[in-house]
Amino acid sequence: MSYTYEYPRPALTVDCVVFGVAERTLKILLIERDVEPFAGRWALPGGFVHMGEDLESAARRELVEETGVDKLYLEQLYTFGDVDRDPRGRVVTVAYYALVRLADHRVQAATDARDAAWFAFDDLPPLAFDHPRIVEVARERLRNKVRYEPIGFELLPKKFTLTELQTLYEIVLERPLDKRNFRKKILGMELLVELDEFEEGVAHRAARLYRFDERRYRRLVKRGFNFEI
Amino acid sequence: MSYTYEYPRPALTVDCVVFGVAERTLKILLIERDVEPFAGRWALPGGFVHMGEDLESAARRELVEETGVDKLYLEQLYTFGDVDRDPRGRVVTVAYYALVRLADHRVQAATDARDAAWFAFDDLPPLAFDHPRIVEVARERLRNKVRYEPIGFELLPKKFTLTELQTLYEIVLERPLDKRNFRKKILGMELLVELDEFEEGVAHRAARLYRFDERRYRRLVKRGFNFEI
Repeated sequence: MSYTYEYPRPALTVDCVVFGVAERTLKILLIERDVEPFAGRWALPGGFVHMGEDLESAARRELVEETGVDKLYLEQLYTFGDVDRDPRGRVVTVAYYALVRLADHRVQAATDARDAAWFAFDDLPPLAFDHPRIVEVARERLRNKVRYEPIGFELLPKKFTLTELQTLYEIVLERPLDKRNFRKKILGMELLVELDEFEEGVAHRAARLYRFDERRYRRLVKRGFNFEI
Repeated sequence: MSYTYEYPRPALTVDCVVFGVAERTLKILLIERDVEPFAGRWALPGGFVHMGEDLESAARRELVEETGVDKLYLEQLYTFGDVDRDPRGRVVTVAYYALVRLADHRVQAATDARDAAWFAFDDLPPLAFDHPRIVEVARERLRNKVRYEPIGFELLPKKFTLTELQTLYEIVLERPLDKRNFRKKILGMELLVELDEFEEGVAHRAARLYRFDERRYRRLVKRGFNFEI
């Protein structure tokens, strides 16, 4: 089979930057390429868009096929179309990104990925194509996002301590936050529901548990929330 | 000439949502299509990406070709790739947006545009393709952008009054702002340089003129500024 057009067309791909949080570390999900170009090199999960699927569906399909990771909230990041970004010729890629709780996502390589694994963001291997730049743009977007949208809803267990939430913000923002200020801000948003429950099995004094008020969370996200710390 | 590929490829286009501000009104730049599909219908300026140009260059080229509008700061908005968004077949479009001072941009239709004109955002004609949705996404982005980035630098004359700046914010945010609060916030940002000059030729008491501190403006934009009003 072959496909003929009157004008030349770039090839269209999708790529996914999936951030995960585990043990106070920001990680990203990479695959080891099994095919040329860059066979044996680590890269973002992704691949060619099929004619019958929209862009986000393509991103989800490639992510499941190459890494086994499923059911996550993908957001479109940016479209990269520099003329020489791919040695195969003109390839334009629509990048997506997500922030997930690492423990929820078992990784399983398949199709044209030889392997799939989480890497600490601060210690990435050399990446294929212009993927270092895509990763950088995603990191910047994530950092900015935190400034005007609450995070944590999808990332923390249903019930969590304020320290766990603060740690999450510190990881994404890459700086320590003042404990008193953070608590004042976050409680002032009336985003959290205080529970009559406490942590269990800890050596120190058990901290109170909270949960997100889902309706209020959705509303804050929608109206463009400002979380200036 | 024809171009043959092993797998089918979507066509790739760019579209531009150019917002302009004039006489207290938010406007957008549209072209009247001269060719099918949607000949005679108004649409966003845009067209097919050439193989040798990157995406932003394509957006600029199409904008100049179809409307004569040049030299503006384009930002990538979003890529729209729904399977059935174009009756010609699979066409994916990378949308860009800009906010310009209308007086700076003379409009001149050409190539496959029969006409080009500014329309009040609140009174748009029926648009071709999924352009109503693209316009809506751009409007939403613009409104959010104002919340975390100062605007006005490219939009106001070199020297302007605080009332002119406030009006600009009111147009973009679509709501009246409290004068005292606005002045307190904007002056508190140390973004403006107070001049020893005043408006001329006005019936009322002449207001003081200000200019932007360009270095500080760039720095605020870069560090993800929060302009919560």
